[in-house]
Amino acid sequence: MGHLWIYSNEVDTKRSPLKGLEPGEQCEILDSSGKGLGYALVNPNQLICGRLVSRKDPFTAKQLKRRLEAALALRQRYFPHPSYRMVYGDSDGLPGLVVDRFGDYLVVQVSSWGMERMLGNIVDALVALVNPKGILLRNDHQGRKVEELPEVCEVAHGDVPQMVPFEENGVALLAPVYQGQKTGWFYDHRDNRARLNQWVNGLNVLDLFSYAGGWGVQALANGAAQVTCVDASGQALDWCEENAALNGRKDDLVTIQGKAVDAMKQLIAEGQRFDAIVLDPPAFIKRRKDQKSGEAAYRHINELALRLLEKNGLLVSASCSMHLESDTLLEILRGAGRHLDKNISILGSGGQGADHPVHPAIPETRYLKAHFVHLAAGGNF
Amino acid sequence: MGHLWIYSNEVDTKRSPLKGLEPGEQCEILDSSGKGLGYALVNPNQLICGRLVSRKDPFTAKQLKRRLEAALALRQRYFPHPSYRMVYGDSDGLPGLVVDRFGDYLVVQVSSWGMERMLGNIVDALVALVNPKGILLRNDHQGRKVEELPEVCEVAHGDVPQMVPFEENGVALLAPVYQGQKTGWFYDHRDNRARLNQWVNGLNVLDLFSYAGGWGVQALANGAAQVTCVDASGQALDWCEENAALNGRKDDLVTIQGKAVDAMKQLIAEGQRFDAIVLDPPAFIKRRKDQKSGEAAYRHINELALRLLEKNGLLVSASCSMHLESDTLLEILRGAGRHLDKNISILGSGGQGADHPVHPAIPETRYLKAHFVHLAAGGNF
Repeated sequence: MGHLWIYSNEVDTKRSPLKGLEPGEQCEILDSSGKGLGYALVNPNQLICGRLVSRKDPFTAKQLKRRLEAALALRQRYFPHPSYRMVYGDSDGLPGLVVDRFGDYLVVQVSSWGMERMLGNIVDALVALVNPKGILLRNDHQGRKVEELPEVCEVAHGDVPQMVPFEENGVALLAPVYQGQKTGWFYDHRDNRARLNQWVNGLNVLDLFSYAGGWGVQALANGAAQVTCVDASGQALDWCEENAALNGRKDDLVTIQGKAVDAMKQLIAEGQRFDAIVLDPPAFIKRRKDQKSGEAAYRHINELALRLLEKNGLLVSASCSMHLESDTLLEILRGAGRHLDKNISILGSGGQGADHPVHPAIPETRYLKAHFVHLAAGGNF
Repeated sequence: MGHLWIYSNEVDTKRSPLKGLEPGEQCEILDSSGKGLGYALVNPNQLICGRLVSRKDPFTAKQLKRRLEAALALRQRYFPHPSYRMVYGDSDGLPGLVVDRFGDYLVVQVSSWGMERMLGNIVDALVALVNPKGILLRNDHQGRKVEELPEVCEVAHGDVPQMVPFEENGVALLAPVYQGQKTGWFYDHRDNRARLNQWVNGLNVLDLFSYAGGWGVQALANGAAQVTCVDASGQALDWCEENAALNGRKDDLVTIQGKAVDAMKQLIAEGQRFDAIVLDPPAFIKRRKDQKSGEAAYRHINELALRLLEKNGLLVSASCSMHLESDTLLEILRGAGRHLDKNISILGSGGQGADHPVHPAIPETRYLKAHFVHLAAGGNF
């Protein structure tokens, strides 16, 4: 069907024992009749023990370079400014590799032994392709533990400042590439933020799980009267303030440090209401076994958010859980509206931006959803 | 669950014979235990024999007016210019009523006896609400035959010119409200067209099933080098030309009158290629029984389109078939890419604009999808 992953229980281990293989090694893959399917980078210790990287010839540094060129060509074609996810793993034919570009700086994340072994080639090819001022390896993330890769955060080329300047939807921003989550920024919501930006002028906005202000600061830069950012991390709120200041709107930013649920309950108790609310939580369903509890958690926070919303208000309800279908989130919203006797309608639904292209044969490459929910003035008529 | 439709086979016809009811009559709806569920406008001759319009009190002209006010409030909140679908049936609590607004002019379509009987109230309320220069009743559509409603196309208020001026995504356009399809324009693709518009500068674009140029003329207005519009209707192509001329780009519009499939085969035979292609066909799956043949037809035209696409080109593949899931269209695209050994990725997926809000309990209110497909330079690596 075109999927590129090989599960360990799909391998005929009598004919091809996985045990002798080194993590990151390249293997030719044959089907049960002996027909060649291509070449994969393998890790014998993983459930997904191999990912196809080439259908015809062994994967080489030359092919790596061509993949990086194609990935860059796609972004240059669809983005006017060099601020984007430049490499998005399997979708760009480079499983286990993520490169985020912030203008002159690149942040690289490797999450497979296959890419780890080619890291030198990757850095060389990136330098040759975009001649960056600096490349940071943010290889200190959870994903590496699973692969038993060492955790490191280091500059691999040039110099990289603590906060790197970039832009999103025409708004100047700074990304905390060393200390921030993932690569320092979440480019994936770019289009959803652009949709919200057009509707925030003059509004009182609540940004839950705000991180460094991706939604909230862009709302301020697009004319929101006031934005309240809520995050459990004081450092994230400092970055919000820094980004608001960069846009001359620091005075209209309110920050609340604390858990989103606690903050929402407190705001409800105080009788506060907002014209627009962004609910962009971390993944509540990281594994299939979290499905039920995760869906209940989404339901809970969405109900709290609907209670904080002014009539004729707008809720952006997002989820980055790969295991939560867009339609299931819609169903959660429907249930929340019914339970609260609130009349809601869906103005639109969005996903990842074009720098996170979906591989049509790999559903796992599509994980992001955001529903734009309008709360009507009346109840359920 | 919040759905508003009543199927005739759900009615206890021993206790409540449908036969005595008049089409358009209002009835109280009780569940099997006798508990009131609300009030519905009914048509005893239809499979969907009733649609709930009120949960508490009988539906009155006063409620009708409040629903229209709420519908207008939503559009005024989210659209800077008065060009939009102002009323979208069930989603606005007004089953069987569609109102498209083109600035000073309104086009009304009624597709149920319930709304037909309130037509006088509807026109009065619309005049009071937006004081239009004219209201056209485009009640000559197929949907009315099913309900056995008379077919009429007439001005109900003021004057309405043949071509009414409006705008979409900042582009000035004219809608053929008397002679065109539906209300004269398809506002539903607004957001998808906006997404394409940002990527067409300097490109050679093919617009299949172009109708009056919703995609193609907007592409020209956004800097496309040349646009080729294909439509079976010569009149539609005349409207394309009129709209291109309005934007000063008539010289860069090529028109081909004919069936899209024939035109694509001819273009392939001529060796022509395009940088961007829009494939926005009419619904191929109008009823469930058309599922298989319809899906084959989508597959066929998408393969033809991919063959006409330049490397690094962009295909917008749309469907307005309610019975075709967005994921099924994605699967069709995946299969087409595999079959042709072309490496495609999905840059984004869109639906209806905010003036076609989705009722979260009525999946039928969500029908439109558009996938943005990038064709990579290489084959399936």
